[in-house]
Amino acid sequence: MNVFHVQFTNSESKYKQLTDHIKSLIVKGSLPHHYKLPSIRKLSTFLNVNNVTIVNCYKTLEQDGYAYTIHGSGTFVIADNNLIDTNEGYSESTVFGDVKYDFITSSPSPTFFPVKAFKGLLNDVLERDGGFAFNYQEAGGYLPLRQSLRELLKGYKINVPHQYVHIISGGQQGLDIIAKTLLSEGDFVFTEEPCYPGAMATFSSRGAKTVGIPVRNKGMDLQILEDRLKKFNPKFIYVMPDFQSPTGYQYDLAHRRKLLDLASKYNTLIVEDDHFSDLNYSINKIPPLKALDTENIVIYIKSFSKVFMPGLRLALLVAPPIFNTPLIEAKQFSDISTSGFLQRAFDLYLRKDLWQEHVNKVKKVYQSRCLTTISALEKRLPSSVMFTKPTGGLCVWIQLPPHICADDIANLAKQHGVGILPGDDFFIDRKQNFFRLSFTTMAEKDIEAGIEILASIIKGTLK
Amino acid sequence: MNVFHVQFTNSESKYKQLTDHIKSLIVKGSLPHHYKLPSIRKLSTFLNVNNVTIVNCYKTLEQDGYAYTIHGSGTFVIADNNLIDTNEGYSESTVFGDVKYDFITSSPSPTFFPVKAFKGLLNDVLERDGGFAFNYQEAGGYLPLRQSLRELLKGYKINVPHQYVHIISGGQQGLDIIAKTLLSEGDFVFTEEPCYPGAMATFSSRGAKTVGIPVRNKGMDLQILEDRLKKFNPKFIYVMPDFQSPTGYQYDLAHRRKLLDLASKYNTLIVEDDHFSDLNYSINKIPPLKALDTENIVIYIKSFSKVFMPGLRLALLVAPPIFNTPLIEAKQFSDISTSGFLQRAFDLYLRKDLWQEHVNKVKKVYQSRCLTTISALEKRLPSSVMFTKPTGGLCVWIQLPPHICADDIANLAKQHGVGILPGDDFFIDRKQNFFRLSFTTMAEKDIEAGIEILASIIKGTLK
Ligand SMILES: Cc1ncc(COP(=O)(O)O)c(C=O)c1O
Ligand SMILES: Cc1ncc(COP(=O)(O)O)c(C=O)c1O
Repeated sequence: MNVFHVQFTNSESKYKQLTDHIKSLIVKGSLPHHYKLPSIRKLSTFLNVNNVTIVNCYKTLEQDGYAYTIHGSGTFVIADNNLIDTNEGYSESTVFGDVKYDFITSSPSPTFFPVKAFKGLLNDVLERDGGFAFNYQEAGGYLPLRQSLRELLKGYKINVPHQYVHIISGGQQGLDIIAKTLLSEGDFVFTEEPCYPGAMATFSSRGAKTVGIPVRNKGMDLQILEDRLKKFNPKFIYVMPDFQSPTGYQYDLAHRRKLLDLASKYNTLIVEDDHFSDLNYSINKIPPLKALDTENIVIYIKSFSKVFMPGLRLALLVAPPIFNTPLIEAKQFSDISTSGFLQRAFDLYLRKDLWQEHVNKVKKVYQSRCLTTISALEKRLPSSVMFTKPTGGLCVWIQLPPHICADDIANLAKQHGVGILPGDDFFIDRKQNFFRLSFTTMAEKDIEAGIEILASIIKGTLK
Repeated sequence: MNVFHVQFTNSESKYKQLTDHIKSLIVKGSLPHHYKLPSIRKLSTFLNVNNVTIVNCYKTLEQDGYAYTIHGSGTFVIADNNLIDTNEGYSESTVFGDVKYDFITSSPSPTFFPVKAFKGLLNDVLERDGGFAFNYQEAGGYLPLRQSLRELLKGYKINVPHQYVHIISGGQQGLDIIAKTLLSEGDFVFTEEPCYPGAMATFSSRGAKTVGIPVRNKGMDLQILEDRLKKFNPKFIYVMPDFQSPTGYQYDLAHRRKLLDLASKYNTLIVEDDHFSDLNYSINKIPPLKALDTENIVIYIKSFSKVFMPGLRLALLVAPPIFNTPLIEAKQFSDISTSGFLQRAFDLYLRKDLWQEHVNKVKKVYQSRCLTTISALEKRLPSSVMFTKPTGGLCVWIQLPPHICADDIANLAKQHGVGILPGDDFFIDRKQNFFRLSFTTMAEKDIEAGIEILASIIKGTLK
């Protein structure tokens, strides 16, 4: 409480003096982000001033962007460390705080984005289409792009007319419009466990209940899946067969076929989230579920964020005919259409055959980082710590002994300049002893150095 | 049924011959889009073939993109007239069919988009930020843009810290995330009547029930509003105070204040959808509700689609502090973030003070079209037909005598090259005798010529 003490003068109103004092505390960093300010009653008693002084002060802090109020809970500090010089342009300091060895970020390295090629295409689009590039687009997508993507999909053994290929603003929007189309309050959805938290959040925002099915090296545990299918009647099963997030596991062909059979047998749908299949480091290519889907029970989402550029907010969705119209409507009521300008540029990118070239290039880099990560972990980690050895994707998933809390390791690691992502968010029951290690953004020597530090912290904790 | 007759030969399987025949009917235009194909039983009886022949035929049509099936309803034609030469690039033939006098389109004229200025800025962003322009953005928005928009909002007398200014992918997404944050199954929402259909669809997709309050020249009928507020307990009142869609009515200051008082008295929120306030042709500027909102009960959406470029998919939302975090979360689970690339370019556009210049330019053109439209209507329409005389926006709303159906007029008009939009979608109870006339895309002489034709059609019908 003492930090709030102010020696009031007669120069200005008391509330102004107090406001300036608290602002300076926030700017200096003495009051952290989300810090709860004292209650009005407490602070007025402490400073021996009228309640109204405090009320006015807090109101002003709020108006000036230094605080926010939650009705019934109090007033909290906004310490916006991200406030940057607006001439800088680029503001992407990691949300998780600055660390030297960043194993948290799993979005691709901006240095790999094909900016130069893309810039040329953006200008081509503007030359060609002028203002028409900036009009509303049909909700299903810009027709030429739907057609190019239809061609692209043939390379994944998915052969559908372009009418069923929808352009969406990222894979996350795909999950959202599927949830809107299929889910109501109280419905069940099956997911892998652990699972991408953004999917679980979207499903539960429609009031659906998520049932987790453990995922293993070769795919979802099919025995447990069938047991649960007998008990519940899920609207769909949400899976990431290629380099599952966060584990990096890949379903083998047998698991894929069996999963399709079970879904068909129990009359449910499958939502296949493909965000990583292009980053396959083995020579072994397994077709996506959608390619094996003879019964039209798979809704397929393919995101371009992890391989291409997340800031384009572009992904595709392949709809079974029966859901084609409802899904397009859900898209339309979500944001009318995806930017036609960006769709046009991406269309040209595909038509100029730049895509595969780009995939090959980044794959080589990530593959090498993946191998470095796995061999460093093998070398450094004590044997009681387990980890996955993915042959694709951007992350390794690490299991600590049950009594070790990943949060504690993460805090210690951070003090030593190493960032890792505790895994509780990936579980419905928030298991504490897992974390995710992403090798996306670091050079190999940094990966090795970071893992060395991390391993010694873990060893220290295990002792 | 006779069109389906096929003289089967032995050259190929029957299902193939039938499939080819139906495809040719679709391509020739003999079967329109959404045409319901005969049931399997009926067609097999008619052609004297096995059920399986029809099943295989319909399946093939579906796989080849000529039909879609709705479970339990049947199989329907996809007549994709929009299929264009993919080298053309630009595909925006009006969804409503081609008419010479287009009073349907209310999205702004692509020729007015500031493409050249914007192109320069896009290149500036790429020079400055490179790949970083294509990374994920914070869900609330790109900080410098939030700050420029905060400054822009001051010109509308809205003064809020940038933390409460969210960047969203168009106004429609604003409605969607508000619905996600505030609405559950069975909740009530009040809207104006008539009302923008995209809003009603979004609210009802969350299971909410819409109660319409008639809107008049100076604003919502406040007496009816208060009566309904006594009976229902709506989550919010959705309004467009500036040039309401579709009527073009503008709320006067007294109606704005009274609306705020009523919302406060009955403890509900207001969602203010500002898509047209920049297109104000009178000298009389009335502050938005948000500027008068001393109690933080207004959620404000400002779309840049109608004045700037819809294809950017950019809008802003101003959140009351208490809903700030939930709204950002809803945005994040909808599409993670809006394209950082487009946010950056728009930010530069605002910082170079190009915005107001652009608004002034387009406003002049639309104002003149608006006056031309109103005077042509005054001159030509019979006195039993009523219409609004907006002082802003892009549309006039027309009421036919009760026994006249706008759909019939629209069909007749189309035959004479004039497109109008029947108004039933704007009503909860789908009133038949209204239509919307948009003067957005046509030169003034075409507006006059189109209205002359339209008026004579209406007169002919009234006789
Ligand atoms: C498994 C998975 N699916 C979908 C997404 C959504 O990505 P986007 O919306 O950028 O395509 C992500 C993003 O991290 C993800 O990890
Ligand atoms: C009243 C109103 N609100 C919101 C929108 C959504 O527009 P956008 O998502 O392009 O901002 C529209 C579009 O027509 C509209 O008419």
